[in-house]
Amino acid sequence: MDRDWEKHGLTASVQHQLWETLKHHPKGITVPEITKELGKQSEDSKVSTALEEDAHFFALADEKWCLAIYQPLRWGFAGTSKIAEDFIEALSLVPGAELMTCAARNKDRLPQAQEFAKKHGVRKAVSDYEELAKDADVDIVYVSNLHPAHRDTSILMMEHGKHVLCEKPLAVNASVTREMIAKAQETGLFFSAALWTRFFPATQMVRSLIESGKIGKVHHFHGDFICEMPEETERLYDPKLGGGGLLDIGIYPLSIASWVFGRQTPKVVSAMGMVHPRGVDNLGMVNLKYSQSEFASVTFAMCMASSPVEGTVHGTKGSIKLQNAMHCPTKISVELSGEEPWVFDFPLPDRPESINHGSTDGFNFGGSLGFVYEAMGVHSAVICGKKQVEDVGRDEMIMLMEVADRIREQLGTSYPQDGPLQKLTAAMPSLTS
Amino acid sequence: MDRDWEKHGLTASVQHQLWETLKHHPKGITVPEITKELGKQSEDSKVSTALEEDAHFFALADEKWCLAIYQPLRWGFAGTSKIAEDFIEALSLVPGAELMTCAARNKDRLPQAQEFAKKHGVRKAVSDYEELAKDADVDIVYVSNLHPAHRDTSILMMEHGKHVLCEKPLAVNASVTREMIAKAQETGLFFSAALWTRFFPATQMVRSLIESGKIGKVHHFHGDFICEMPEETERLYDPKLGGGGLLDIGIYPLSIASWVFGRQTPKVVSAMGMVHPRGVDNLGMVNLKYSQSEFASVTFAMCMASSPVEGTVHGTKGSIKLQNAMHCPTKISVELSGEEPWVFDFPLPDRPESINHGSTDGFNFGGSLGFVYEAMGVHSAVICGKKQVEDVGRDEMIMLMEVADRIREQLGTSYPQDGPLQKLTAAMPSLTS
Repeated sequence: MDRDWEKHGLTASVQHQLWETLKHHPKGITVPEITKELGKQSEDSKVSTALEEDAHFFALADEKWCLAIYQPLRWGFAGTSKIAEDFIEALSLVPGAELMTCAARNKDRLPQAQEFAKKHGVRKAVSDYEELAKDADVDIVYVSNLHPAHRDTSILMMEHGKHVLCEKPLAVNASVTREMIAKAQETGLFFSAALWTRFFPATQMVRSLIESGKIGKVHHFHGDFICEMPEETERLYDPKLGGGGLLDIGIYPLSIASWVFGRQTPKVVSAMGMVHPRGVDNLGMVNLKYSQSEFASVTFAMCMASSPVEGTVHGTKGSIKLQNAMHCPTKISVELSGEEPWVFDFPLPDRPESINHGSTDGFNFGGSLGFVYEAMGVHSAVICGKKQVEDVGRDEMIMLMEVADRIREQLGTSYPQDGPLQKLTAAMPSLTS
Repeated sequence: MDRDWEKHGLTASVQHQLWETLKHHPKGITVPEITKELGKQSEDSKVSTALEEDAHFFALADEKWCLAIYQPLRWGFAGTSKIAEDFIEALSLVPGAELMTCAARNKDRLPQAQEFAKKHGVRKAVSDYEELAKDADVDIVYVSNLHPAHRDTSILMMEHGKHVLCEKPLAVNASVTREMIAKAQETGLFFSAALWTRFFPATQMVRSLIESGKIGKVHHFHGDFICEMPEETERLYDPKLGGGGLLDIGIYPLSIASWVFGRQTPKVVSAMGMVHPRGVDNLGMVNLKYSQSEFASVTFAMCMASSPVEGTVHGTKGSIKLQNAMHCPTKISVELSGEEPWVFDFPLPDRPESINHGSTDGFNFGGSLGFVYEAMGVHSAVICGKKQVEDVGRDEMIMLMEVADRIREQLGTSYPQDGPLQKLTAAMPSLTS
């Protein structure tokens, strides 16, 4: 994406200085700070105007992000699914993001990838993931094929020096997740799970409210994700494809619970539920104990009529509700004892007319414009030289998959990648129900 | 309560025939039926008018109730608590109910009982429970002292031939509950838990909706009762007084879960939670498995800011929500896939101005006018010679207390009445988590 600073009448020399200044602030710098730093120039007000005009989009984001985002980051895409369509379109709104290359799964599917590239403004399409991995014009790859393929794809990309943003769940179990994270640590590249929920301003507000003590001591989080997923959707009902409700939707309330209680490893994980005749978890009810006074209860189901996807953080003095849809929240309500609820609204940015490829507000899935928060957060982290996003830590991702393994063990579902179940949860001996 | 049939110009002879006819229909008779039966009389239309005018209050109830209720039932009261105040006032709206006698706990408290009797129109006050038990003018006793006293009080009453309606929970554990029910069976008297939730028209509507198949196959019930109960309320925080959230509030969502799934004994009961330093259960999260495809999750807590007390029945085609307050519901909403929710409203009857003894709409507790449904149901059952109310079965009450015992065993709380914990749950070997 071009930064049209010229139109503001900035000389080439000042444009150059601007870039240099940005580069010397890898952790970000605010608009007033950079304006001050370049303030000796007569052109200082032009600089600030140029930055601010382009920065208006990021009003809701951390002020420091906006400058990191002006630096280019070249994206590749492994997977041309519906979620990839949505992510790419949201990503295209990030000023520094360059949509370089998308890869077909194999040569036969190249025409589809070419069509995908054309539709979404990605510069080129290549015929397999290896070609993408070797593409010198790509800095970071968004991996969004099916969960069981995440490991091989992500490792392939990292082996060729690419940073990776990998859709959730990172893998089908903790053991495979550990392999992926070990590769990330070995290579020193950026590698993160695409846990988009954590990037939403509404989610961040919940964090601030909890930390402020507004609702007292938090004792309980409850979250449900109950929906109806057609049995015809092969990937959801086939264990070989990583099917089941737990990894697809259950992971959302589970990850919010973890985040509410400061990413502690739960001391007890207790689950029961239903297994579909095809062998995947259809419904699960999970109780978690984080400490003597911190608990969460979570229900996920893909076999019932859809309900509002909501979660509530309960404290001694009040509660905070992440309203529907909790996994991509734009509204929270806070209820304090004996007071009228306050509602905080964080509407998504206006959708550009250019985004119009799906049935739901121009996207395939509701709320997908919210990918822009994740895209900005990841872009900023990579440009600033971080190996992960602070709020989506690698240790926590392993822990969450250990919890998921434990849940599946209790529900009685397994994936071909699991190996013997005792192996699956051996790393988490404390998690006894 | 006087039945003012004279004002309708019924002769003494017809009034007498009316009573005789009612007595010969112990299972109830509808207004059209009795009118038909007395139809040989020239006064038949007067009879029907007289009955219907008095029956208007019961429009929401089963048509057969209204006649049973015209027969007198003389009530005694063991316990002069706030809940007793509310129940008595609601009971006074039932035409045949006669408020005969209330009993003080002991001689010292006779003045309070006398004051209570005067305030609520109870004919006399006696100085202890034994005197009440021996009162020949009392047919049925409402037992509403503290849970640990329910056993001795109820058994005393039954030993003296009184029917008993005992507040929930019947006792602090299953073992004591079994003793009480054994006494009821031995004496052949009416004995029931005062599970008022089951008598509400809204609750009955949920049952009809489930049975109609409207929301498909029901897989899950979720209910929460989260509130803030002051630590100064001695009875709630002292194990000797049967304290803890489970028996006071947790029992509501648990009993609704049982009722949703046809009173099955759950195959798995899994609980975790918090124990207050004084040794009572402060918070509990319970998952229940009724069958391979029927589950419930329940949270209760008395240590957090109050939340709406709501429960949702989830089926394959839709859901039914028992809106706040779920334990005395007047509103339910039904959501079917892809349709706007329907809301069904069952407002409480108009509150007579005479009821004005508390701060909440004339009562001590919100929704207490709803006791009238329970009062009508019990009155009708007793008059019709039943030993229990159909929808509050004795076996189920024992089973619910077994579930509660199992929950306390897992939470780690006990009452002096429990004896060794292994004894507590020995009767329920299948309930392993």
